[in-house]
Amino acid sequence: MYRSHNCGELRESHISQGVTLSGWVHKIRDKGFVAWVDLRDRYGITQLVFDEDRTSSELLEQARNLGREFVVQVRGEVIERASKNPNIPTGNIEVLVEEVVVLNESQTPPFTIEDETDGGEDIRMKYRYLDIRRNPVKDSLIFRSKVTMEVRKYLSEEGFIEVETPYLIKSTPEGARDFVVPSRMNEGQFYALPQSPQTFKQLLMVGGLDKYFQIVKCFRDEDLRADRQPEFTQIDCEMAFVEQEDILSAFEGLTKHLLHEIKGVDIETFPRMTYDEAMKRYGNDKPDIRFGMEFGELNDIAQHKAFNVFNSAELVVGIAVPGGNSFTRKEIDKLTDWVKRPQVGALGMVYCRSNDDGSFKSSVDKFYSQEDLSKWAERMGAKAGDLMCILSGEQNKVRAQLSALRMEMAERLGLRNPEEFAPLWVIDFPLLELDEETGHYHAMHHPFTSPKPGQLELLDSEPGAVRANAYDLVLNGNEIGGGSIRIHDKETQAVMFKHLGFTPEEAKAQFGFLMDAFQYGAPPHGGIAFGLDRLVAILGGQETIRDFIAFPKNNSGRDVMIDAPSPIDSAQLKELNLKIDL
Amino acid sequence: MYRSHNCGELRESHISQGVTLSGWVHKIRDKGFVAWVDLRDRYGITQLVFDEDRTSSELLEQARNLGREFVVQVRGEVIERASKNPNIPTGNIEVLVEEVVVLNESQTPPFTIEDETDGGEDIRMKYRYLDIRRNPVKDSLIFRSKVTMEVRKYLSEEGFIEVETPYLIKSTPEGARDFVVPSRMNEGQFYALPQSPQTFKQLLMVGGLDKYFQIVKCFRDEDLRADRQPEFTQIDCEMAFVEQEDILSAFEGLTKHLLHEIKGVDIETFPRMTYDEAMKRYGNDKPDIRFGMEFGELNDIAQHKAFNVFNSAELVVGIAVPGGNSFTRKEIDKLTDWVKRPQVGALGMVYCRSNDDGSFKSSVDKFYSQEDLSKWAERMGAKAGDLMCILSGEQNKVRAQLSALRMEMAERLGLRNPEEFAPLWVIDFPLLELDEETGHYHAMHHPFTSPKPGQLELLDSEPGAVRANAYDLVLNGNEIGGGSIRIHDKETQAVMFKHLGFTPEEAKAQFGFLMDAFQYGAPPHGGIAFGLDRLVAILGGQETIRDFIAFPKNNSGRDVMIDAPSPIDSAQLKELNLKIDL
Repeated sequence: MYRSHNCGELRESHISQGVTLSGWVHKIRDKGFVAWVDLRDRYGITQLVFDEDRTSSELLEQARNLGREFVVQVRGEVIERASKNPNIPTGNIEVLVEEVVVLNESQTPPFTIEDETDGGEDIRMKYRYLDIRRNPVKDSLIFRSKVTMEVRKYLSEEGFIEVETPYLIKSTPEGARDFVVPSRMNEGQFYALPQSPQTFKQLLMVGGLDKYFQIVKCFRDEDLRADRQPEFTQIDCEMAFVEQEDILSAFEGLTKHLLHEIKGVDIETFPRMTYDEAMKRYGNDKPDIRFGMEFGELNDIAQHKAFNVFNSAELVVGIAVPGGNSFTRKEIDKLTDWVKRPQVGALGMVYCRSNDDGSFKSSVDKFYSQEDLSKWAERMGAKAGDLMCILSGEQNKVRAQLSALRMEMAERLGLRNPEEFAPLWVIDFPLLELDEETGHYHAMHHPFTSPKPGQLELLDSEPGAVRANAYDLVLNGNEIGGGSIRIHDKETQAVMFKHLGFTPEEAKAQFGFLMDAFQYGAPPHGGIAFGLDRLVAILGGQETIRDFIAFPKNNSGRDVMIDAPSPIDSAQLKELNLKIDL
Repeated sequence: MYRSHNCGELRESHISQGVTLSGWVHKIRDKGFVAWVDLRDRYGITQLVFDEDRTSSELLEQARNLGREFVVQVRGEVIERASKNPNIPTGNIEVLVEEVVVLNESQTPPFTIEDETDGGEDIRMKYRYLDIRRNPVKDSLIFRSKVTMEVRKYLSEEGFIEVETPYLIKSTPEGARDFVVPSRMNEGQFYALPQSPQTFKQLLMVGGLDKYFQIVKCFRDEDLRADRQPEFTQIDCEMAFVEQEDILSAFEGLTKHLLHEIKGVDIETFPRMTYDEAMKRYGNDKPDIRFGMEFGELNDIAQHKAFNVFNSAELVVGIAVPGGNSFTRKEIDKLTDWVKRPQVGALGMVYCRSNDDGSFKSSVDKFYSQEDLSKWAERMGAKAGDLMCILSGEQNKVRAQLSALRMEMAERLGLRNPEEFAPLWVIDFPLLELDEETGHYHAMHHPFTSPKPGQLELLDSEPGAVRANAYDLVLNGNEIGGGSIRIHDKETQAVMFKHLGFTPEEAKAQFGFLMDAFQYGAPPHGGIAFGLDRLVAILGGQETIRDFIAFPKNNSGRDVMIDAPSPIDSAQLKELNLKIDL
């Protein structure tokens, strides 16, 4: 038996008890006549004491020779601390050591095992097993485990069944790129790793399982943007005999449960907003509604004056930055530079100060009267002391630009409080999305999403106008979940595939099994999938997902700790009937 | 809203209520003036009634036109049944239908959706979504979900953290064959899918997580034996600062919990047996101890007589089949043929009847006296009325043959009661196993298993004699879990790799990250992994795992429903820098 207690549990009530502890040497303080060692494990830190009066000189010497991150087992007696440490739960006691056994030595770690470490990202990834010893990473992993357990408890109690769907499935060129797996037993053929269990969960509904969920790894071979991983985890859910309202209600329930259990936050009802409204009010289909700065559209009051930049724009739109009138001219110039960065892409920015005396001062004063500007202020909800920032141009672009500015201003003004939670349903998404490069429409959610009743006919005449029974759950400006009511009849599915550019033969080759299934009594069904990595990070008050993944990959898709991917044996290649062709 | 109630919940207390149900048309009985429809969903079956007196003729006609597996929504009133059906929970009521909406039609399914279906294995696999509608499959999937939830609840409450380890890892030629995944972003390089998260869970222990578990998919590209799947699920567990006893105790706790919660079976303490003892008493390292028929070794009493077959054998060993004296001579001859089948491989079988009058009658009477045979009976524990079956030959082979016979006899005698549960720890496994083909030793468990203290030195002189801190949990003659205390220092690990035929360079290239990790304060640790598919099947009282897997693959590793694996686009191949080379 390596320990009678862990390093986080001893209290004053244990004083005088003999105990055995095991853990890592976190810190050593040697005062000559006395030495203290902080012994650390997952559960906490316990102070060990060795001193000239009560410890043999051999033992004291042994303590002095311990190194950082040595693994030791100690036997001793719990005693009261002379100088207590109120910052840790074990701070009232220490263990007077009678015996030390070194279980394993350690080289000096390449970075300090502290909350604020001196190690950079790369070295911490290479030695991820040491990084995990640090509280911020360890606590994130424990937090993730707690969240997934709560998800499972809630959904199980609601009658959902967790079903494992296969990982070795079929490659479909639609959507993102698949990772593929060559089959040795079926020569020249490949499995694909699932981008999501979408078709399988639909088949489970055809199979009558009624309520399904799964916490499941999914795979996408994409060029990795920052904070994306080639493998990621979804909470994948599907229900039969449901309309959109049933799904929203069921998963609002789940999210409320998580906020309550995990964060102690209670939210009565989640607000809802159509996609169109979200785009109009926030320029974004995942608005952060923890703060205001809603868009004010100015076309009717800012156009048809002498300012040609606005006159020629499809959309003139602005936000009022609270307290922004305190910005200096130089600060405003910097802000203009910020929106002109290629990542944002605005051509320029018009500003208008809202002074305390009710007057306005804008960069376009020569084109607009005080009365004009007062209308602008009203439209944007600008109060005295605010700064109005106005962009103009092509509607979709200018909305994206102003949305970026709104988020940036919120960040700078400290309005994005990670301990405040503002969920929002965004509903009525477009069914199709125009790919500006190819000029083709593709499915905004996925090809199995059902159009709103009666809108199927619009597909030919006005495809971009068709709205879907599709919805996203947004939390603090991040899409944490998205789903739809699915198509459940073969004819509608065939129409959808046609509009997405599949020939009937292609549709049959790739999704024939699903179309077949729809002919054998497919019930109405729909579902949702949550991005677990992101959900956990946001609940944990973080912006990046990496600390919530035990062994993440870098932006080239590499695991630098185990050094994967890597070349394989030529014998392995031969068995798979493959040749590398660089 | 598609339904006010499901098809399993209406009772007499609902009589007179208006309800809306949705489900599948399970059966239609048309008596002319009255028609009954059994409406089915996941939760049960509710009888719908349409009759001339109370139903419009249009509606009655509509009911008659429904087909099997049509998906319908009905509105009606709950009424008391005239002729009650005590076999189903809803058998006291029926719903007098006022309105039927056909939500989806169905072609005639290719097999009946009944507990005993007329569909063969192949057709049911192709239409798995229909097979899942059948109770035996549906209930198995629900059962699996319940078991995994109980595993998670128990382990979470015991302080285990569920951590997701990566699926895209590094290929290691050791052990079974890996499935590999070509990397597009790292040209000419491959990921591998994990055969188990072994090294990652060990790194989590190095990382201080202390108690880890994960229910996780694992992958092995093996030629598939019956009832093996290329992807399978493990309950994977690891603990730090533990000795073998701590692991046995922790996971005996888990297994007891499952037996109690899932089966209502309480078992005080699991018996333990060394590997050597299991081989000696049952000829098998996973003995089914629900019944006796223990091996009696006869060398000292059956050799050195005139029977040369026994004299020349390394081992003479038999079992007493309870009540086997009732077998006719013809039946015994058939049994002899059975052990001589190539799958068993015995050269012959000696038998000895134990008569009710205390006399013996054997096939080798001319070589052995009644006194000799009485000693045999004593050794095998044969009682009056039993039949002794004796095999002889090379020890390992004859043990395997007699074990096969023992299991067969138990099967025929009905001694393998699926509702009886007999767990057993088998401990002290050999560290290494001789591969008879190559003459090399390989790791019996895996290369990370630690030898028993003080036995490392034996590796050079007598490798087959070294015993490991390795253990299996056996349930009803199946290995449901196996694990070991791991090596946690670099030197021992290097010695192990050397004995397994790795050069130091190979060891470093493949497992350098683990050996590195051991130099930074690796704690003593160990673990276990349960085969979930098998565990669930046994708890469910079944021998085969297939019904407990939603979408299993066939023996060629194919998913015949989605038709995977399949060829992929040449463009996809090109992106991956691969050429097919048949």
